[in-house]
Amino acid sequence: MMKTEIQEIEKALQSYLPQLLPQENDLRKTLFESMEYSLMAGGKRIRPQLVLEFCSLCGGSREQAMPFACALEMIHSYSLIHDDLPCMDDDDLRRGKPTNHKVYGEAAALLAGDALLTLAFETMLSPESIAAAGAERAARAAGELARAAGAHGMVGGQIIDLESEGKQVPLEVLEKMDEGKTGALILAACRMGCILGGASPAQMQAAEIYARSIGLAFQIQDDLLDVTGDAALLGKNTGMDSARGKSTYVSLLGVEKARETVERLTCTAIDALLVFGEEAKGLADFARALANRDH
Amino acid sequence: MMKTEIQEIEKALQSYLPQLLPQENDLRKTLFESMEYSLMAGGKRIRPQLVLEFCSLCGGSREQAMPFACALEMIHSYSLIHDDLPCMDDDDLRRGKPTNHKVYGEAAALLAGDALLTLAFETMLSPESIAAAGAERAARAAGELARAAGAHGMVGGQIIDLESEGKQVPLEVLEKMDEGKTGALILAACRMGCILGGASPAQMQAAEIYARSIGLAFQIQDDLLDVTGDAALLGKNTGMDSARGKSTYVSLLGVEKARETVERLTCTAIDALLVFGEEAKGLADFARALANRDH
Repeated sequence: MMKTEIQEIEKALQSYLPQLLPQENDLRKTLFESMEYSLMAGGKRIRPQLVLEFCSLCGGSREQAMPFACALEMIHSYSLIHDDLPCMDDDDLRRGKPTNHKVYGEAAALLAGDALLTLAFETMLSPESIAAAGAERAARAAGELARAAGAHGMVGGQIIDLESEGKQVPLEVLEKMDEGKTGALILAACRMGCILGGASPAQMQAAEIYARSIGLAFQIQDDLLDVTGDAALLGKNTGMDSARGKSTYVSLLGVEKARETVERLTCTAIDALLVFGEEAKGLADFARALANRDH
Repeated sequence: MMKTEIQEIEKALQSYLPQLLPQENDLRKTLFESMEYSLMAGGKRIRPQLVLEFCSLCGGSREQAMPFACALEMIHSYSLIHDDLPCMDDDDLRRGKPTNHKVYGEAAALLAGDALLTLAFETMLSPESIAAAGAERAARAAGELARAAGAHGMVGGQIIDLESEGKQVPLEVLEKMDEGKTGALILAACRMGCILGGASPAQMQAAEIYARSIGLAFQIQDDLLDVTGDAALLGKNTGMDSARGKSTYVSLLGVEKARETVERLTCTAIDALLVFGEEAKGLADFARALANRDH
């Protein structure tokens, strides 16, 4: 998990975006620009890093994992564009910049989201990617992402979020929602890295425990920061969840219990990495950093 | 291209939809129903039939082709849901029924489209589908569909349509738009059938000529029906294209030249089928039926 890795991811993402031919008076310009605007808008690139790390821990190469790593970020990016649309959260700002539909209009933002979701599969299943990863691993890893992103995964979590808006919900609904909205892609990232690297069953199981633990810890920490965080550091207002009447891990468990749970989950995640030995140090540091983040 | 084939497709489509567990009080109910509402709303199922026919002509089985055939229909269905949204064409009716967002609301319609697009890849890349088709063919065929559906294919055609709204455009822009909006998925259907059936290069080339010819003929016939068709038979108003100031093949070529072109393209399509021999009779009839349709 180093800076050079992120730079490589950024470079690869840019290379997979559709390009206008310079001589063309191409009416698709708005679409291509709108896709680039959101995909290249920064972000922590957590999911691609997880793919690359697990693939390399299992003995695979960066070259074979990169299209799959970038595909995860494309799916994440499309979901943010569609989430921000007026018929969903109706947000004007994302990471301090105007949201996609504020810049390109609703129709182009809708299509940019559709095209980024599709681009994820174009990228994973290009002839080059299939040749580098091998058809069996490429097909399995792309199938993994499809299941994680769909009605039983991320989109399923989004509809649960919509349907429980402004309502108090019990812990199991909150967990089911987050398992879909954020957990599914994090789990897919770790599993895809394992598939591409040719993991043993023990390695795959360890990656799943790690993924589920950091996924849930990440979400609880988010809720904690909304209550105890510093608005200046976070770059957004705090106390929004309770103002909106939303059930959160903090409202359901209390601050102390929520903190303990983050601690416990982080230990579980790091314990699971033992099977990989010293080389997994980066992933252990990453789990700790997520639990201790203040923004 | 027979009735039993369509019934099999309908049955398979239904089987790939996400199912609620009966005991669950599942908040994803709206999403699942909204997906089913549009996917199972009838339609000619042209694209799935093309996959099945070409796969079987090349020596493949229906079993291995069915997930890919259904995936094409899922992509077609998602594109209609998103096209009908208020920020796009803002349509209230589709095939005589209220559009998806009129029934389930905009947010659920948006998510149903996203989930159907994703379901296409879940279906093609399920463990069962990979095992039946073989990983190499499954990965190649799914990659084919991704490219056809994305920014260089269908979504690219949709943005050209948006950007040229209410404008007169030259023939090459109209062709580029239709190549994306309708041509790309028809070409993908025929090519995917060939990939799954293990086509020879000559068979693949023949399928491409057939696909491009019927794709364009279909579109020109659509424009002709808007001018010369019977509103009662069509189930929609005629003369809409010229009322909206849209460039069409008829406005650019004239009725006579447009008719001749449909004739010529249909002959080209049928000629190309010779390489497949008598077994391709169904596809020849299909090309003729498209050219002679009155609705």
